[in-house]
Amino acid sequence: MHSLQFTADSSSNGMVERDFTVGDVPGILWSPASGADRAPLVLMGHGGGTHKKHLAMAGRAQRLVTGGGFHVAVIDAPGHGDRPRTAHDEQEIAELYRARAAGEPEGPIVVRYNAHLAELAVPEWQATLDALQELPEIGADGPVGYVGIGLGTAIGVPLVAIEPRITAAVFGPHWPDVLVEKAKQITIPIEFDLQWDDERIPREAGLALFDAFASKEKTLHANAGKHMELPRFEADSAVRFFARHLGRAVTSPA
Amino acid sequence: MHSLQFTADSSSNGMVERDFTVGDVPGILWSPASGADRAPLVLMGHGGGTHKKHLAMAGRAQRLVTGGGFHVAVIDAPGHGDRPRTAHDEQEIAELYRARAAGEPEGPIVVRYNAHLAELAVPEWQATLDALQELPEIGADGPVGYVGIGLGTAIGVPLVAIEPRITAAVFGPHWPDVLVEKAKQITIPIEFDLQWDDERIPREAGLALFDAFASKEKTLHANAGKHMELPRFEADSAVRFFARHLGRAVTSPA
Repeated sequence: MHSLQFTADSSSNGMVERDFTVGDVPGILWSPASGADRAPLVLMGHGGGTHKKHLAMAGRAQRLVTGGGFHVAVIDAPGHGDRPRTAHDEQEIAELYRARAAGEPEGPIVVRYNAHLAELAVPEWQATLDALQELPEIGADGPVGYVGIGLGTAIGVPLVAIEPRITAAVFGPHWPDVLVEKAKQITIPIEFDLQWDDERIPREAGLALFDAFASKEKTLHANAGKHMELPRFEADSAVRFFARHLGRAVTSPA
Repeated sequence: MHSLQFTADSSSNGMVERDFTVGDVPGILWSPASGADRAPLVLMGHGGGTHKKHLAMAGRAQRLVTGGGFHVAVIDAPGHGDRPRTAHDEQEIAELYRARAAGEPEGPIVVRYNAHLAELAVPEWQATLDALQELPEIGADGPVGYVGIGLGTAIGVPLVAIEPRITAAVFGPHWPDVLVEKAKQITIPIEFDLQWDDERIPREAGLALFDAFASKEKTLHANAGKHMELPRFEADSAVRFFARHLGRAVTSPA
């Protein structure tokens, strides 16, 4: 088992940011500047084609850390961010761009490529969680949540299905093909964000995935707008969702 | 035009409760115990078979008044609460109970009866709003919202479609039959609550009604659970929705 190595740190806006590695996998841990001791942990999966330091990740982390008092960790998915692309990655990405340019449906390519990435990423997340829980400010028995949309959902659904340490999760739409059977195994509280006018993932696909979760408590938030137009107030809603389920008061007007 | 007559008042938990009538229509106005001057107004439509003083109304009002600082007004729908039932009301209610007992679909009866009630109730709401805006603590130019689920939606959709003073609304599922054409005329921000496992209103009916609103900003909140199991945190979400759109800070952890 690899332990966690911190490689850089900085601090701003009430938030401490620490780069780390677990084995070959680079990540970031954001923590409250004060009151971080034994705070709950939220794992965050980035979207396809982005990376751990993408603005959307930093923005969500800011709300979770200063609005909810959580630790927040994100790692680069295989072939993303600071990690090398394999020939297979290059080939799948080229195929995706070709299909988009030709106006062909991207679903089959994204479904197959994300399933491949998830197979690699799930054990990486489990090793990362092992290492994070060795840190005294997190600890082995604190509550853990997961938030991830797009590729973050494609990786998060199979992760949450087999990882009992994660007790609440926020997901977003994805083609249901390979995820439905995993979602049926999930019973923890779920918040699910969907764009009603998504031009990439069909509405019926997103609704079918939401429908599949076996959770007694699950909430769909569907907003008017296209794929990339998720309203920012949904990031605030996720903070409140985790505060309810991981046991933390929302301290700022998140 | 009828002016508003107060008939009783009381005060508890930071909230002033005043019974009123406008013509033959009885209602309640809840207001903050302090800071009520020129606060925004939220109109609240009760559900079918209930009334202005139903626990669900008082509970929602408490959150809106003490959590959001709003005035909140509710009136009895025709044939409900303190209002007389006509022979037609009795006949439709008997028919509804008969269909339920026989395991027949209730949709056609509810759709037709609620459409009849809405025809009567829309002008009553407009007269009530006229009278409420004569009160100095509300005023004629302040922002107005509407929240109503079930019968409250059946009345609210045609009301909002023709009432430009209402600038934000929270609705719930209903059979779309007579409401879709009205919903297509509505462009104000909408929050829409739906129960994913509703045993009375089919999921597709609720989704079709949500789909029909022409609003650029609309959000569907769909929760696991049956018709009557709307989670209480959706009442808090409605407070935040009105705070965003009627210009009010949420002052308590709503």
